[in-house]
Amino acid sequence: MNSGLARRAALSWARSRALTPQRLWPVLRARGGVEALLATGEDELSSELRSKDLARAVLRGPEDAEAARWAAGIERTGIRLLTPFDDEYPRLLGEIADPPFVLHALGNVERLRLPAVAIVGSRDASRYGRDVATRLGRELSGVGVTVVSGFARGVDAAAHEAALEGPGGTIAVLGCGLDVDYPREHARLKASLAASQLLLSEYPPGAEPRPQNFPIRNRIIAGLSSGVVVVEASRRSGSLITARLAADFGRDVFAVPGSVFSPTSVGAHELLRDGAILCRGAEDVLAELFPSVGAPRRPSAAESLPSLELSPEARRIFDVLRREEGLSAEDLARALDLPAATVLASLFELEGAGFAVPAPGGRYGAARR
Amino acid sequence: MNSGLARRAALSWARSRALTPQRLWPVLRARGGVEALLATGEDELSSELRSKDLARAVLRGPEDAEAARWAAGIERTGIRLLTPFDDEYPRLLGEIADPPFVLHALGNVERLRLPAVAIVGSRDASRYGRDVATRLGRELSGVGVTVVSGFARGVDAAAHEAALEGPGGTIAVLGCGLDVDYPREHARLKASLAASQLLLSEYPPGAEPRPQNFPIRNRIIAGLSSGVVVVEASRRSGSLITARLAADFGRDVFAVPGSVFSPTSVGAHELLRDGAILCRGAEDVLAELFPSVGAPRRPSAAESLPSLELSPEARRIFDVLRREEGLSAEDLARALDLPAATVLASLFELEGAGFAVPAPGGRYGAARR
Repeated sequence: MNSGLARRAALSWARSRALTPQRLWPVLRARGGVEALLATGEDELSSELRSKDLARAVLRGPEDAEAARWAAGIERTGIRLLTPFDDEYPRLLGEIADPPFVLHALGNVERLRLPAVAIVGSRDASRYGRDVATRLGRELSGVGVTVVSGFARGVDAAAHEAALEGPGGTIAVLGCGLDVDYPREHARLKASLAASQLLLSEYPPGAEPRPQNFPIRNRIIAGLSSGVVVVEASRRSGSLITARLAADFGRDVFAVPGSVFSPTSVGAHELLRDGAILCRGAEDVLAELFPSVGAPRRPSAAESLPSLELSPEARRIFDVLRREEGLSAEDLARALDLPAATVLASLFELEGAGFAVPAPGGRYGAARR
Repeated sequence: MNSGLARRAALSWARSRALTPQRLWPVLRARGGVEALLATGEDELSSELRSKDLARAVLRGPEDAEAARWAAGIERTGIRLLTPFDDEYPRLLGEIADPPFVLHALGNVERLRLPAVAIVGSRDASRYGRDVATRLGRELSGVGVTVVSGFARGVDAAAHEAALEGPGGTIAVLGCGLDVDYPREHARLKASLAASQLLLSEYPPGAEPRPQNFPIRNRIIAGLSSGVVVVEASRRSGSLITARLAADFGRDVFAVPGSVFSPTSVGAHELLRDGAILCRGAEDVLAELFPSVGAPRRPSAAESLPSLELSPEARRIFDVLRREEGLSAEDLARALDLPAATVLASLFELEGAGFAVPAPGGRYGAARR
């Protein structure tokens, strides 16, 4: 069939408020494709869609000159428009019940051909959540898996940023137009993503980030991905919607364990109780989804342990820091029964060798590698 | 049958190095009980035990006057000796493959009639592990469940101490004689347990805490308990042995999630991957094991939230502290964009109202209730 025709129809349908993918896809699939749908008589289609107006809107799609002009105008700004009838349209997304009729794409659309995993979580993630997202993002991207997320503050931003460098890279799915700066403080991150990664949205340029957009957007995040990892989520987090959608689509849902005292881990623990796969790191995701990819690159025990050239005191301090978060020099002196001066000298030594990192309030942590 | 006879036999068998419960119970069970066992001919028993000496030792058990004198001597010191043929012997322990022929008991043996759950974990637990053990111990004991543990440093000690006050109380199972002070720094804890709780050991007074005792001791911890909760465990922790034994005995195994960066949570996460039940708190244990007991007593949301009499700043600070661990006043001032003086005043306010607790290094945490 003429795929140009189907594409023109999809662009037209995408502009209609009433012709939602949720409404049209069941009929489109029942008919067996666009060609058959467009060959349906208006009366028959009206009864199937239970609306004369909708049936007319469907049938006149391919001749919608205004939609074609609108699309050409957008594409002149550098945004690509992908419809389910284009080769570049992501295959996994096409398999869900209601794939969007248009994806606005800014950046490298080749990213859509890579294996993809979503990393999602709380906007108000704790440092722990951001650290986990960072390590997962870096390690998945490092082995060629694209990290999909929602461009929000917290977990999303950490995952995108960490994935930037690796071969897998990252895809951000927005709940507003690609030209709308939301959240405002992510303008620089957005520029990086547009330059070498990929930004996607179902919404046209100028569309505001309305709260009701985000659950709808979440189906794209889940739909693009072979699996969804929930890093941190409070009890009513949107990440839980993404996880449920992923499960509905038959994709694997992973959840990262955390402190039982942390409100931001409540949602992830709920998921684990409900059968989500425990995610301790990229290795758990890869083992499940892409067993042939192998383990992520992480420093071996030998590399990650301080070399023998470190002083014995520094080695002891490092062992304690690996076990316990955010200790001050006084804490360490007390715990190890060492003079404060020795502790401070050892911390200086560890920091210089890249094994300890200072934290706010004069505390220290083991470098997480 | 004469239960005094069976008891005398068990006391004799318990004193023999060669007649281990592992060796004797299969024959005892195959025979159908002590009476039948003692009525077996020496030759027949020799072939079943594959040893003439063992068979003789079994058969002369009831007449072992030395064992009877030894037992009387121990009981004069206040230690009770419980054999599987005594009414006080814990029923669940009697159901495992190799219950000990004698339990030395110091304290209140009535504790053995209460529902019991083991809380076990690392000797070198982090503060997180000790905090979890404390809350679990307090909440389980609070609803009448006895907390069983191994009297070690770290998780065990935290669980015992927290359970002391509640109606469930606590049982410590030692890997040495009840009169041996191990670990040395637990002498006071031991005195408390002996006074109102219960100390148990398979080993006679004077027995040293040899490393090989502990895995054998762990079967008693698992055997006494309807379920075992592993709070924190490194990869090769003895707690994992207790968990495996519990699973072998058909008891439920629970594991507490923690930071994926924490080496002391590696073992608990392994267990979760292998099908252990996620334990976020006592409610998860009770729901599984004692659904009729109901939820643990914990302050309601209304009680645990600062009252409206607190200043708005204090409320904001409390919200941050509940999310993130160990922040200093400077961290809080930065995060909330508040003057340092306001933060300090609010922390003082929160501490006074019992909503914040100071931590080492000038940091603060939300009070865990």
